Amino acid sequence: MADVTKVSPLAPKSFPDLPVIDGVEFSAVEAGIKYQGRKDVMLARLVPGTTIAGVFTQSATRSAPVLDCQRKILLESDAGAAIIVNAGNSNAFTGRNGVDATRAVTNAVADCLDLPEARVFSSSTGVIGEPLPHDRITTKLEELKNKLSPASLKDAAEAIRTTDTFSKAACAKIIIDGKPVKIAGIAKGSGMIAPDMATMLVYVFTDAVIERSTLQSMLSELTNLTFNNITVDSDTSTSDTLLLAATGASGVTVEGTNDAFRETLQTVMLDLAHQVVRDGEGATKFVEIAVTGAANDADAKTHALSIANSPLVKTAVAGEDPNWGRVVMAIGKSGAKADRDLLSIRFGDVLVAENGWVSPDYREEDAAAHMKNDELAIGVDLGLGSGKATVWTCDLTHGYIAINADYRS
Amino acid sequence: MADVTKVSPLAPKSFPDLPVIDGVEFSAVEAGIKYQGRKDVMLARLVPGTTIAGVFTQSATRSAPVLDCQRKILLESDAGAAIIVNAGNSNAFTGRNGVDATRAVTNAVADCLDLPEARVFSSSTGVIGEPLPHDRITTKLEELKNKLSPASLKDAAEAIRTTDTFSKAACAKIIIDGKPVKIAGIAKGSGMIAPDMATMLVYVFTDAVIERSTLQSMLSELTNLTFNNITVDSDTSTSDTLLLAATGASGVTVEGTNDAFRETLQTVMLDLAHQVVRDGEGATKFVEIAVTGAANDADAKTHALSIANSPLVKTAVAGEDPNWGRVVMAIGKSGAKADRDLLSIRFGDVLVAENGWVSPDYREEDAAAHMKNDELAIGVDLGLGSGKATVWTCDLTHGYIAINADYRS
Repeated sequence: MADVTKVSPLAPKSFPDLPVIDGVEFSAVEAGIKYQGRKDVMLARLVPGTTIAGVFTQSATRSAPVLDCQRKILLESDAGAAIIVNAGNSNAFTGRNGVDATRAVTNAVADCLDLPEARVFSSSTGVIGEPLPHDRITTKLEELKNKLSPASLKDAAEAIRTTDTFSKAACAKIIIDGKPVKIAGIAKGSGMIAPDMATMLVYVFTDAVIERSTLQSMLSELTNLTFNNITVDSDTSTSDTLLLAATGASGVTVEGTNDAFRETLQTVMLDLAHQVVRDGEGATKFVEIAVTGAANDADAKTHALSIANSPLVKTAVAGEDPNWGRVVMAIGKSGAKADRDLLSIRFGDVLVAENGWVSPDYREEDAAAHMKNDELAIGVDLGLGSGKATVWTCDLTHGYIAINADYRS
Repeated sequence: MADVTKVSPLAPKSFPDLPVIDGVEFSAVEAGIKYQGRKDVMLARLVPGTTIAGVFTQSATRSAPVLDCQRKILLESDAGAAIIVNAGNSNAFTGRNGVDATRAVTNAVADCLDLPEARVFSSSTGVIGEPLPHDRITTKLEELKNKLSPASLKDAAEAIRTTDTFSKAACAKIIIDGKPVKIAGIAKGSGMIAPDMATMLVYVFTDAVIERSTLQSMLSELTNLTFNNITVDSDTSTSDTLLLAATGASGVTVEGTNDAFRETLQTVMLDLAHQVVRDGEGATKFVEIAVTGAANDADAKTHALSIANSPLVKTAVAGEDPNWGRVVMAIGKSGAKADRDLLSIRFGDVLVAENGWVSPDYREEDAAAHMKNDELAIGVDLGLGSGKATVWTCDLTHGYIAINADYRS
C-alpha cells in the first residue's frame, strides 16, 4: 500500500528563494478549519493601484467564492485589495449558506483592512458540501493583519495546501527599460485536476504596472498554454481559481506587446502548473505528451488530453510498460481527426510506430529503458497538418486509489 | 495487492442454461494464439437465409477485422454465414499485414465451410500492434469444423475471453403467434470498456425470421439503451464488435413493430452488458447511475457518464464513502446543462442533497450503510426537464491498477 503522507518523489529538489514583490504583503495562521496543527488560512494585502486579473473554473456547480470573485474581477478600481484563502473546506454546494459565509468573510476582511468589500477576493478549498465555519476565519483576522509581511509568501504557499505533499512556488526576474521587474506565484493542487478555464488555486504577483484589461488578456492567453494543459485525473474542481495581481510598485510599465514579460510570466505559470502535476495524487512519473501534425491546434489538444486522461495509458506508465497500443487506442477514441496509417509515435527518442504499425527498427528494450525514467516524453505525429499541443500529466498508481478510496476531500 | 486471477465478486451465481438456437452451430479449440492451455478460437456456422446485423467501434484507429466486418455487414445475401473469433491478439494497428491476416483467415473459413468470403465475419481481441499469427487459426479450421455442434455456445463464450474472469452469456424465450422463439448471446469484455457505437465482442443469436434492415435498426436502437450505456474505465476499444444473427429456423417472422420481441432482445443485451461491468477490471461494486430531470436525454447521458467515468467518484465507491460532493463535481464538469440550486442526489433510497445543498434530513450513516452493498444506485435529478438516462459502471480499485500496470493487453 502506498504511503500517502510522504512527499511526492517528483517534487522539486528545493523550495525556491522567493523575492519580495513590492506592493504586496502576506500572512498565514492556524484557524483549525479542518486540519489541526498547521496553517490553513492565508491573507494577502495589495497596495492601491494594483490591477487584478483572474480565470476561474467553468464548472456548472462552482463554489460560492468563485462566483463572488468572478463578479468582482470585472470591476475597475484604484483602491487597494486583499485575497483571503482557506484550506479544508471548499464552501462549494452549500446553497444560500455558502453565499452568506463568503460575504461574512469578505466583509470582515474589508472592515479589518479598511478596503471596499468589492476589492476582497476569497477562495476556499477542501471538502465539498459542508458549511464553512467562517467564524474560525474572521476571529483570526486581527492576527493575520498583524503578521502581514512582504517576506511571507512562503507561509501563504503552505497554508493553502490540502492533499498536496509539498508547497508550490515559482518566481522570475526580468529587466525592462533597465529596471528589474519581479514575478512570484504560489499554487495548490494534487487531485481533481483537469482544469477547464483556470485551475486549482494559484496566486501570481508582479510589481509591474499593467493595465487591468492587458493583465486579463495576458492571463487568459497564458492559462491556455499552461494550467489548461495539465491533468492529473480528468476531474475538474468546483473551486479552480487563478488570480494575477500587478502592484505597480516597481514603476515599470508593461504593455500587452511586451513579449519578454509575457514569456517570463509564462515560465512562472508553467513552472507552477508542472509542480501541480508533480504532486498529482499517487504520482511516480511526470509525463509530457506532445502532439504534432494534427489538422489544427484544437484537435492536437483533444488527442493529447485523450492520451493524458486514459486510465490504461496512465497505468501502463505506472508499470513502466511501453504499451504504445494503448496510445493508439486513446488517439482512436478521442473524436478528433486521425488517420491510422499516417500515425507515428515516439517514447522519448525511440520511434515506436509509424505508418499504422510498429516501426521496423523498433526494439522494445529501447522504449522499456525510457519508461524507467521519472520524466517521460510521449510524442505523437498525426501526419495531417500543422496543429500542435503539449500537455502534462502523471501516472495512475495504487497511491491514487489509496488516497481517494479513503480520504474524504 | 489484489489477486487478479480470481473470479469477480460480482459474477452471476451460475452460468445460464443456454438453449439451442436452431440454425447455428458452434465450436472452440486451443490454437495457442497467445494463451496456452485454454480455448482461444471460436467458430459459428449459420444456415442459409440467416440475416446478420452489426454495430462496431467508432474508433479512428479501429482494427482490420472491424473494418472488414463493417464492409460486409451492408451486403444482402441468402447464403449461409460464419463468425470466427480469436482471443489474445486484436490485429489492430497492424497496417497492411493486418488486412492480409484478416483475409487469410476469412478466405480459409470460406473454403473450409464452402461459403462466399463476403459471408465470413471475423473478430480479434487482445494485444494491439502485434502481427496476428493467422496460421495458428487456419491450421485449426478442420478441427473447428468437425467439432461444430448446436450445443457448444458455452465453449464459444469461453474461447473469446481475455482479461475476463468469467464467461458471459444470456438467453430468453418468447412465444410469438403461439410458437417459441429463442435468443441467446455471449460477450467478452472487462477493461477498455467505454463503448462508442458498439462494444467489446458480443454475439447474439435468434431463430426468428427477421429482415436484415429491421434487424439492423432494432440492434442500433437497443445498443444505445444497453452496451452504449456502460463504462468500466472510459477507454474505448479498437475492436468493439456486436453481431446479431437471425437464423430464421423457427419459421416465426418478427416485424420491426414487435415490441415484445424487442423488449426480450433488450433484456438479453442488457444482461450481457451488465455482465461486462460485473467483470470490470478490479471491480468490487456494481453501480447504476440514473439521471432524471435533465434538459433532454442527451444531457442526461452526458451527466450520467461524467459521474460514471469520474476517477474520484469511482474511488469513493471503492472506499464505501458516500462522498456526494464528488457527484456534484462530476455534474459540474460534464458540460451539459445543470443548475446547482435545483439539483437533488440520492444514494439508494437516501435523499442526500437537494436545492443546492445537503438535505436537512440527511444522516451520513444512512448513505454509508447503502455504500456497503455490492450493488449501488446513485440517483440524480436535475430539476430542469424530462430528459433521462441510466448507465452502469463499477468502482476503481487497486485491482484495476494491478491488472493494468502489469498486464500487457
